[in-house]
Amino acid sequence: MNLFEAIEERYSHKEGFLPIPVPLTDLELIAKAGIAAPSGANRQTVRLIILPDREALNPISNLTPHMGLETAPAAIAVLTDTSTTPSDSMCFEREDYSAAVENMLLAATALGYASLWLDSPYFNTEKENAAKDLLGVPKTFKLWAMLPIGKPNGKGTRREKLPYESRVFYCKYE
Amino acid sequence: MNLFEAIEERYSHKEGFLPIPVPLTDLELIAKAGIAAPSGANRQTVRLIILPDREALNPISNLTPHMGLETAPAAIAVLTDTSTTPSDSMCFEREDYSAAVENMLLAATALGYASLWLDSPYFNTEKENAAKDLLGVPKTFKLWAMLPIGKPNGKGTRREKLPYESRVFYCKYE
Repeated sequence: MNLFEAIEERYSHKEGFLPIPVPLTDLELIAKAGIAAPSGANRQTVRLIILPDREALNPISNLTPHMGLETAPAAIAVLTDTSTTPSDSMCFEREDYSAAVENMLLAATALGYASLWLDSPYFNTEKENAAKDLLGVPKTFKLWAMLPIGKPNGKGTRREKLPYESRVFYCKYE
Repeated sequence: MNLFEAIEERYSHKEGFLPIPVPLTDLELIAKAGIAAPSGANRQTVRLIILPDREALNPISNLTPHMGLETAPAAIAVLTDTSTTPSDSMCFEREDYSAAVENMLLAATALGYASLWLDSPYFNTEKENAAKDLLGVPKTFKLWAMLPIGKPNGKGTRREKLPYESRVFYCKYE
């Protein structure tokens, strides 16, 4: 799919998914797109865990129930390795993981899937730590988000956007 | 250009640019790609300022000298409107601007340009504020980055990346 088409078609899928497996090769293409994103100072802090089927996903969706996680045939967990970044203001883990997520959302769209940048279940540190334990992730990693991936159950809609004129300016802000 | 091709070809252009103008229509396509990115709670905090020529860019490159800014025929300033987000942990401005930047870097690549996620000059709050003044930006906005855009002077190279196997895992982190 053309880049601009993928950007236009991507939307946050907040409903359920159809029980159709996602081929592992597609999940790998999506993950490859994710780690190809730029990273601050090229530190490449992002790590991904592919959850290729319900067996891998069930413990996570039981821990943090969400219609997307409960019905998706697959998902990708998005982490950063906090041990590779300095603890001062030169930490770009949020930028790193966000650019990687955007690449993966576009890749999923281009391959005909819907997805969602699902971070809210992991704002709760206890839940985040419990999910990290289920995934065997070391304590020095941060779990930022889970991307459920699959064929959408019904046609999802893009949320309304502000007009171009109120967000893009020329030469000066006015 | 195909999405996966754009993801593969994107690189951080750290050298200069050729003095070939970028048509405004291309800059607008890039800006549209930027504001089409997802945003936390759909708050759409990102604002962009297109600097379409050297006249618009010179004051900025004089303030924050950088080979990219000094030679690029155009640039896009990336801001967030901090007044639209709560001041607690539910602030997603870094995620919002990062996803928008990644869309714009891919769009620039697809249109045959090089670009760079240039944030370092604005880590310095005095420089950030001076740049905001030059751009007429209200105090409640944050200037995160400037993306110089143009035809690259020479073929830039992508920085070396860690192997897939050290960043992507299956079912569990191992």
